[in-house]
Amino acid sequence: MDNYNLLQENIRKRIEVTDDEISYFIFLLQQKKYSRKELILRESEISHNFTFIVSGCVKSYLIDTKGEEHILTIAPSDWWITDINSFVSGTPGNLFLEALEPTTALLLSREKQELLLAKIPKFEKYFRILTEKAFAVSQQRIIDYMSLTALERLEKFVASYPSVISSLTQQQIASYIGVTPSFFSRMIKGKKIF
Amino acid sequence: MDNYNLLQENIRKRIEVTDDEISYFIFLLQQKKYSRKELILRESEISHNFTFIVSGCVKSYLIDTKGEEHILTIAPSDWWITDINSFVSGTPGNLFLEALEPTTALLLSREKQELLLAKIPKFEKYFRILTEKAFAVSQQRIIDYMSLTALERLEKFVASYPSVISSLTQQQIASYIGVTPSFFSRMIKGKKIF
Repeated sequence: MDNYNLLQENIRKRIEVTDDEISYFIFLLQQKKYSRKELILRESEISHNFTFIVSGCVKSYLIDTKGEEHILTIAPSDWWITDINSFVSGTPGNLFLEALEPTTALLLSREKQELLLAKIPKFEKYFRILTEKAFAVSQQRIIDYMSLTALERLEKFVASYPSVISSLTQQQIASYIGVTPSFFSRMIKGKKIF
Repeated sequence: MDNYNLLQENIRKRIEVTDDEISYFIFLLQQKKYSRKELILRESEISHNFTFIVSGCVKSYLIDTKGEEHILTIAPSDWWITDINSFVSGTPGNLFLEALEPTTALLLSREKQELLLAKIPKFEKYFRILTEKAFAVSQQRIIDYMSLTALERLEKFVASYPSVISSLTQQQIASYIGVTPSFFSRMIKGKKIF
C-alpha cells in the first residue's frame, strides 16, 4: 500500500472521504515504473491517462517545426500530469511526456475516472479543485511570460521547484523559461542563482 | 428570465439538471450591466466573482512595471471569466477586468458558489468540466507562444474569436498575441487577415 499513501494524503487534503471510497479509487489505478528518459506519451498519441507522480519527475514538452524542444510543465512527486487537451477531447495531442528520473506513477484512465465519478460523485470536487489550481498555475505562467524578464522567470522557477532543479539540465531550464540555451548561459554568467 | 436562458443552455450542455436546480443556481446570481471601458475588477483587488457574460465582451489584462498592457483572456458572450488565482486563493490579484462593449453579466461569488455546491453537488461536475476546458485553452495558449510565429498566432486568434475581432483595436490584438503595436503594424502590412 505504500505507494498509495501519498495520493491518499493528496486527496484527504482536499475532500473528506471514507477508507472504502479511497480503496475504490486505488482499485481503479494502474501502477507503472519508468526509467530515466523513458517516453510515457508521444506526440500524435491520445493521452488516455491522468498520471499521479509517486516518486521521480516527469516533463511534458513539444517539439516545434524546427525540431526544438519546449517544456510546458514539470511534475515532481505529489503532482498529476497529462496532456489536458488530448485527455479532455480524446483526440491525438501534440505533447510528449518523459520521465526525467526513475519514476513511479499511478495512472487513472479517462474511462476509469468516469467510472469513479459516476460511482462516487464526491470525487468531482477533488478533480474540480485540482483543475482550478492547475488552471491558476497555467494562467500565472502566461502572466509571467508577459510581464517578467527571463531572469525574473528563472528566479521564480528556482524558488517554485527547488526539488526539481537538480534533475534538470541547463538546457531544460532554459526551455522551461522560454529562452535559448546560449541566451541562458549569457544571462546567468557570474550570477548565483542555483 | 431571458438573460438566464444562455446560462441555462450552457449548463444543460454539460450536465443533467432539473428546473428546480437551475432555479436555485439562478437565485444565487447577481445581474450587472457595464458600459464600454468600465472596469469590473482592478489590480490588487480580490476577484470575488466568477462572471458569466450574457452579452457584450470582457477582457482580463495586466499592466507591467513599464505601464504596458498585456491581455490575458477575452471572454465573449456564453463564457465565464475571473482572475482565477485571486478567485481560488481569496487574495488580491494582479489582473484588471474591463468591458470592451456594453456588457450584461451574471456574477456568482465564491461564497455563493460554495453554497450551491454544498446544496447541489452535481454542479461540481459542471465546474470541473468548465475548468478542464479553461485549463486546456490556457495550456494551448502557452504551446502557441512557444511554437508558433506571431503571424500564425494572429491567424489562429482571428479564427478562434471571429465575433470579438470587431470590438478590438489593433493595439489590443497585438497585446493578446504578445507583440508590440509597431511590430504588429509591420507584420500585417499588405496581408489580408481580417
